[in-house]
Formats: sequence, structure tokens, C-alpha cells
Amino acid sequence: MPNMLVVGSVAYDSVDTPSGKNDNQLGGSATYFSVASGYLTDVAVVAVVGRDFDPDDRSMLSDRGIDTSGLVQVEGDTFRWSGSYREDLNSAVTLETQLNVFADFAPELGDAHKALPFLFLANIDPTLQASVLSQMTTRPKMVACDTMNLWIDIARPALVSLVEQVDILLINEAEAMQLTEADGVASAADRLLDMGLRAVVIKRGEYGAVVFHKEFTFAVPAYPLVSVVDPTGAGDSFAGGFLGYLSSVDDTGNDAIRRAAVVGSVMASFAVESYGLDRLKSLNATEIDARFDAFVELTRFHPLGGGQGLPVKSTFNS
Amino acid sequence: MPNMLVVGSVAYDSVDTPSGKNDNQLGGSATYFSVASGYLTDVAVVAVVGRDFDPDDRSMLSDRGIDTSGLVQVEGDTFRWSGSYREDLNSAVTLETQLNVFADFAPELGDAHKALPFLFLANIDPTLQASVLSQMTTRPKMVACDTMNLWIDIARPALVSLVEQVDILLINEAEAMQLTEADGVASAADRLLDMGLRAVVIKRGEYGAVVFHKEFTFAVPAYPLVSVVDPTGAGDSFAGGFLGYLSSVDDTGNDAIRRAAVVGSVMASFAVESYGLDRLKSLNATEIDARFDAFVELTRFHPLGGGQGLPVKSTFNS
Repeated sequence: MPNMLVVGSVAYDSVDTPSGKNDNQLGGSATYFSVASGYLTDVAVVAVVGRDFDPDDRSMLSDRGIDTSGLVQVEGDTFRWSGSYREDLNSAVTLETQLNVFADFAPELGDAHKALPFLFLANIDPTLQASVLSQMTTRPKMVACDTMNLWIDIARPALVSLVEQVDILLINEAEAMQLTEADGVASAADRLLDMGLRAVVIKRGEYGAVVFHKEFTFAVPAYPLVSVVDPTGAGDSFAGGFLGYLSSVDDTGNDAIRRAAVVGSVMASFAVESYGLDRLKSLNATEIDARFDAFVELTRFHPLGGGQGLPVKSTFNS
Repeated sequence: MPNMLVVGSVAYDSVDTPSGKNDNQLGGSATYFSVASGYLTDVAVVAVVGRDFDPDDRSMLSDRGIDTSGLVQVEGDTFRWSGSYREDLNSAVTLETQLNVFADFAPELGDAHKALPFLFLANIDPTLQASVLSQMTTRPKMVACDTMNLWIDIARPALVSLVEQVDILLINEAEAMQLTEADGVASAADRLLDMGLRAVVIKRGEYGAVVFHKEFTFAVPAYPLVSVVDPTGAGDSFAGGFLGYLSSVDDTGNDAIRRAAVVGSVMASFAVESYGLDRLKSLNATEIDARFDAFVELTRFHPLGGGQGLPVKSTFNS
């Protein structure tokens, strides 16, 4: 029985990165999210694919314990995206988008999925995201969503309405500023929190992520990898680790959210180490724990405890 | 008796930022460094100013306990720099540089300064930086230096030779990649460490800093300020907090270096809150401690202890 639902895309991607090209790799927001979160929790995926969808790709997901009963197959071809990271590993340039079966995607939830406690609305048309949320018979404990510049450009009112209904928005730095017309991330976050969010997670690529929560701010760096092969899916893998952790521990408190952001960063760091899902889908518990421990090492600084301040000279005491 | 020496510039700056313009504000790398480090340790400054240097500016430094005996005044005008941050708060566009008395600057150390245990070679011609280091009669416990793209362009061999002689290089992200011709910060850092450095501190503006040490990597975010008024001097304030802390605790071990990077981030966060030195020079111990505590809160995530791993599903145990 799953306890988390993701609605998003399943795609075949072709990427061009400084490491080279790779064509027709399995991708899509729902795919990265479900593989990343599937290490930690039972997740069900709702998405659409075409007749060309490789049965082995469905098996890869279901063999991992991911509920693919909502992964519907229809006439036509699977969504295809091709992009280049030649100029900047932090942001893809889209070369081509073939929506294919995704053009007419209108997600309908099965009864088994309508009352799950955690819901991730991956980056699709905000009207569809809202439709999914409205199909839930019980308001989930936590609803999170992602979006992109396209929807800010062409569907801003629907997106704003959606943001007002969810708990957590995960969004790229540039898109947070575009959506709020702020000139910095902290003020963008302030404006987003004013829209009613419990928290906004600003994703900053190789610079990591910052959680702006109503009650605290938490920053986590990205893992400093010498070689980033393919950034595709990093944001969705982050979201998968983030929500997968929260749903696994069934805790949406402040400390859990901090730790979840680190787990998200762990998953994103694995995702970018190879093309597509190659690395992300090959992990074991030992590797995941070791990378989490590496984040502890990367960020710890033995804060001074018990009221012992910094050694500021006494002449500056008042 | 000082225990740290800084050699660098003292200047009058004119800046244009999204908050507005401010002309002829006291600045310069040695100024920011000595004010920031002066909260924590006894620092002596070696620099040159002209006849137009305001006696009140010298008093401001000496009243703070900064040794200004090496701040020589000569015929001519003080170094002037004007820059704009209109496009990007993370990097200044230089509008004008008037070297003035700085053009003929050849720092000569007084005997009282030749054996100090901590030395910061702020951003000046690497030949001058090397000259200062060679004047030290006792090799300091720790020598750190900064640099900029200009010296990479026109004095690369001298800069490389200097880097081979110092312990710690503090450098901007873009300049680290320019100097090493690497395509990412982690590989740039690897190459710099291969040159013999004990550590390289990569400064990333609003994204914080990463310490790549021979024995560990430590990342610290920048403090997420809603309003950044003037980024001038942020890097030198960081260096001042960093080395000021190390010299104050007289410890150059790994844990001290981690904490020092946070103190550097604390000082940089204050520096950018106002034009020039306005905020940085007005701090007291309580404010500094509170900002350090805010960095603890910004980064803590209660790591799982005692071998308790993440809740990875048992099917992924091997």
C-alpha cells in the first residue's frame, strides 16, 4: 500500500552535456521522483506513456516496489525532450519538446490513490496539478509542487491559485524571482510564504538549496562533485528524497524538514553522477547512508555551546 | 603587540548598487580586513595613502586597536576605485581605477612586523605579495592570500609562484576556474591543492563559500539577507573574520578552520548590509555572537547518530 503519490511526466530524454551526448534515456519528473523516493517509502506514480514505452522500463519501476497502476499507456508516442547543458550545467537549454501523448494528459486518480497522505505535484500544467489535488478525497498531510518558467509565462493565475493550496513549493532560484518579481531569493521567499505556503524550497543547482519555512531558514550545499555528467532530473530527485524521507518517518515537523532537505541533496548528488537514471537507480542503503554522512562532514562546524561566545575582544562588548 | 599582519590597499571607493550611489567611502582590502579581524585579534596594517587621506579615517582604525604604524602617507592622492553592481550583486563592474600613490607602492615591513605569526596578503600585485612574505624573518604559522583576475591575466607566473609559497588561497569561484582552467570548482580546487596549498577557500558571493582543505571539504552558505546594500569588501571581510578567528584562538587545526569559515561568513554578512564600512565598523560582541548563532540555526540538521542510518527500505540493503 503506497503512502505517497506523484503526478508528473515519464519521458525519453536526449541530452548533450560537457561529458557527451546520450539519446533516448528514460526520464521525466515522475520517474526521477519515484525512483529517488522509492528508496525510502512506498510511492505510486500517475503518468501517461505511449505505445513505444519499453516494458522493461515499467518493470524497472515495479521491481523497485513502485506502484505503476496509475502509469497509463495510450495510443501514440511517449513524451520526448531533448536539451543541452553545454553552456551551463545549472540550466538546460531545451532543444526540442515532443509532447506526444502528454498533450492530452488529464490525470484521473484511482480510488486507491485518492487518500494517500503525501502528494507531489511534479512540474506539469498547474491546472492539471490543481485537478489532481481536487480529486483527493482526504486532504493529504502534505502537498508539495514544482513548476517552471513556462507556466509562469502562460498560466500565472492558475499557478498562483495552486501555490495558495499547497504546503510546500519547490522551485528554481530564477523561477522564484520571476514568479514574485523580487530581486533576491530571500525576498522572493518572503513573498511566496505570504501566499500561504508553509515552506518554499529554493533550488540553486550546484549551489545547493535553501528551505525558507515560516518558522526557520535552512541552507544545504550541493555535494561538491568533481564530475557532473548529466544534471537532468536533479530537482525531481531532490524532491523525491525530500518527500520520501518525510513520508517514511511520517513527520512533517521542522527538524524532519531540515533532514529531508539533506536527503534530497543526497539523491540529487547521485542523480547527476551519470546519464539519466543510471546511478540513481543503482544505489544501496550503505551508499545512501555514506553520502548522508558526507553531508554531515561537509557542513559540521562544532558550534560553540553553552553560552560560550566567539572570542570577540572585550573592547567591543557593548 | 599585534599577532597578525595584513598588506593590501586602503582606498576611497565610489559605488553604484541597486540601493543607490555612494561616493568616496573609505574602502580597500586592507581596511575591510583589519576592521573585520580587529574584532577578534590584534592586527597591524601595511598600506599606503596620499595627502588627501582623512585623519579621522586613520583614527577610526587606531581607535579600534588596529596598529596603523605601517600605514604610510606619501605625496599624491589615495587610491580610488569606482564600481557598479547594477547588473549583478555578485560581481562588480569596475568603472574607474585611479592607482595614484598605489602605483609606486613597495611595502617595507618594520621590524615589529617581520615575525608576526599570521599574515594576510590581500589582493595586490603578486610580486609585492611575495616581497612581503620574503621580508618575514620568521615563517608565519599561517600565510593566506587573495588575488583577482587582473593578476591571472598579466602576472600568472608570479601568482603561481606565490600560491606555491602560501598556506591558504582565498579566491572567487570564477577566478579559481580561470587560474586552473578547470570547468568546475571541485576540480579547480583539486588543482590548486596540487600546487601545495593546505587549503583553498572558494568564495561564491551570495552562495557562500567552500573550504577545500587537503583533509576535508567544508561548505558554508551565505546569510540569506533580504537586502544587500553594497557587496564591496565582502571577500576581505570574510578573510578578516576567517584569519582573525584563527589568530585569536591560535589554532590552525581542521575544526578551527571550519569555525573560521563561519566567522568569515558572519563578517561578510555584516559588511554587505550597508555602504562601505558603515555596518561592519559598528558591531558589538552581542551582535557578532547572535549572527554566529544564526549560522548554526541556518545549517543544523540533527544528523542521525550512533550508526542509525536513514530509513532506507530493506530491499535496498545490498
